[in-house]
Amino acid sequence: LSADVNAPIVQYVARPQILDLGWGHPTPATLPTDAWAQAVQVTLSTYGWQAMTYGRSVGPGPLIDWLAEHIGTVDSQPCRTSEIFVTAGASHALALVGQLLVQPGDVVLVDAPTYHLAFRIMRDAGAELVSVPTDDQGVDPGAAEALICHLRRTGRRVSMLYLVPTFGNPTGRSLPAERRSSLVEVCARADVTIVEDDPYREIGFDGPAPGSLWCHSERSGIVRLGSFSKTVAPGLRLGWINASAGLITKLATLGYVDSGGGVNHTSALTMATFGASGAYGRHTDMIRRQYRLQRDSLVAALRTTVPDVPIAVPAGGWFIWMELPGGLTAAELLPVAEQTGVSFVEGPRFFCDRAGGSHHIRMSYSMLPPADLTEAARRLGVAIESRG
Amino acid sequence: LSADVNAPIVQYVARPQILDLGWGHPTPATLPTDAWAQAVQVTLSTYGWQAMTYGRSVGPGPLIDWLAEHIGTVDSQPCRTSEIFVTAGASHALALVGQLLVQPGDVVLVDAPTYHLAFRIMRDAGAELVSVPTDDQGVDPGAAEALICHLRRTGRRVSMLYLVPTFGNPTGRSLPAERRSSLVEVCARADVTIVEDDPYREIGFDGPAPGSLWCHSERSGIVRLGSFSKTVAPGLRLGWINASAGLITKLATLGYVDSGGGVNHTSALTMATFGASGAYGRHTDMIRRQYRLQRDSLVAALRTTVPDVPIAVPAGGWFIWMELPGGLTAAELLPVAEQTGVSFVEGPRFFCDRAGGSHHIRMSYSMLPPADLTEAARRLGVAIESRG
Repeated sequence: LSADVNAPIVQYVARPQILDLGWGHPTPATLPTDAWAQAVQVTLSTYGWQAMTYGRSVGPGPLIDWLAEHIGTVDSQPCRTSEIFVTAGASHALALVGQLLVQPGDVVLVDAPTYHLAFRIMRDAGAELVSVPTDDQGVDPGAAEALICHLRRTGRRVSMLYLVPTFGNPTGRSLPAERRSSLVEVCARADVTIVEDDPYREIGFDGPAPGSLWCHSERSGIVRLGSFSKTVAPGLRLGWINASAGLITKLATLGYVDSGGGVNHTSALTMATFGASGAYGRHTDMIRRQYRLQRDSLVAALRTTVPDVPIAVPAGGWFIWMELPGGLTAAELLPVAEQTGVSFVEGPRFFCDRAGGSHHIRMSYSMLPPADLTEAARRLGVAIESRG
Repeated sequence: LSADVNAPIVQYVARPQILDLGWGHPTPATLPTDAWAQAVQVTLSTYGWQAMTYGRSVGPGPLIDWLAEHIGTVDSQPCRTSEIFVTAGASHALALVGQLLVQPGDVVLVDAPTYHLAFRIMRDAGAELVSVPTDDQGVDPGAAEALICHLRRTGRRVSMLYLVPTFGNPTGRSLPAERRSSLVEVCARADVTIVEDDPYREIGFDGPAPGSLWCHSERSGIVRLGSFSKTVAPGLRLGWINASAGLITKLATLGYVDSGGGVNHTSALTMATFGASGAYGRHTDMIRRQYRLQRDSLVAALRTTVPDVPIAVPAGGWFIWMELPGGLTAAELLPVAEQTGVSFVEGPRFFCDRAGGSHHIRMSYSMLPPADLTEAARRLGVAIESRG
């Protein structure tokens, strides 16, 4: 698991003394190196030069076709090929959507808490971020509408609302179905584009995931970001956007997309092979079992090692969001925890204004094997106990 | 060579009746499908999970190390690893640089003629493009300086100057050495960042390419865009930026780059293998011979079929830029040429204001084999003759 220090390759930094629940990265052993090498070989021999030259702007036909069928199955609703644009990952998708929809100085509303690294992407597009009102179930649609009206009365442009509504980062929770419909209606009325970041949908442990906001909508005024980073491998830099055919055309005619012949052609065509061959289905079945096992290990251990803390068990995704007991803050706990050999991400990082989450921590069970998760929970219990 | 019409894969559109000199795409038969599949296999077995997880923001160490050594050889000057950022191609690089350096409404100066698809990339960043004064040798540094002063006196911000100074698109020509030094001085004095788009440097036919602007500079106030699209394969979407360590840090800390773990990790690490194994050197030796052969075929044929037209023989790259005889315009010739079974790109497309080039055409010898180039020149001669 160690990277060469003189020529670092990966984002992950190993700290040998610490079981680090801070990384939202895949379990290394699950990454499909052999199956991907095989898919590359098949792709290059099947498509030859077409796999390596300038590609189609929206993405190669075979991947768009496979995605349309696959998304239709996942959503239990048909997906049109005209509503798909292949991206270099969900972060890249968010950067492109921000470039098209956000004018410098616009307000972009963001869930609170939500995926912290998305903040900088939207700020790079010139957005001013404002937390949307939430409660324990997630975004409150009525309060969101009131906030949008208030901001507009003060002369602000409000262009987008960003959230991860399904098996979300950092909470692991999903927005209830009635709020989904209601939020879609509110934003359609207010002409605010919903950006639904949806990378965890296919990592559900207890039956099908809640229907996407995209499927709750009339399929305009909403952009859904799909990703292969959690289901296959983040290093491939592949994902997709579901949006209206009009927005897809705007994406495909961006100067850089047109000049480059799509954003990641060879890898995208390889993913078509990986999907059509059945490797995608086999791989996602395997990782669902694996991540379920890891979730179960961490949840079971925490129930023993921090018995006084109620654990909201995530039905999918990679994360547990835990409130610390006895008024303890994440900032107080972190140095003690690291001394005890365990780490996590402090709650405030997931609020755009850092105004919430001071008593919460995010723990990821995605990267460590079950035995390490059990030991990490033990160390966390010791650290919390020592501050009690 | 035909793409499946029902599921188009590539940007290229075959028109069976036409020998199309319009496409600046690689010769399909040269694309290294077998060698790349081999490099993928070696990379995935050598680096395992590290090849597929979130990568280092600036690019994987092994590629940065190989690039530093390789660029040092190509430039005959050392290249520091801190001056390299791995991109998803030169178009992607230009989009990122535009995002960092251009404020909406800025003037960006562009060579005239120059690479036409770059215009939209810079306009997407909010730039207003203005042609820089040129003559038959390329950009005139003194006149460029006067233009910058004039624009600033009228209250305009001038942030960048874009050009392809070596084996350029569309002219095939290179800026003379004394103009290189002079342009670098002028832009340093005026605090205008030079963006040197440099994808053809390693496709020189007659000895080493002219020294880059990057090497003529103090390595600040200049950004050089390198690319694997012409030397290996455009579908991989890989290139690099040479810039000051300060700008490299700004690129690496863009929200989308940080969140995604670099912009194309798995492919970038594979390119490190392709480079270090010697495959890159063998491949570029082969394509230099091949493109030289294709250049020679088209030049020789044109000297026979349009004998009255002086042909400026390019010393590298993919393009011939030809002035039409007898006052003929490219717009008049194009429909006749296509009826005769040959095509090209009209000159005005390479001017940001379309105010020049009406009597010029760009012909690419990069995609067609020698026999087709000879026949294309014959058809072009017939078409010109019929309008004479």
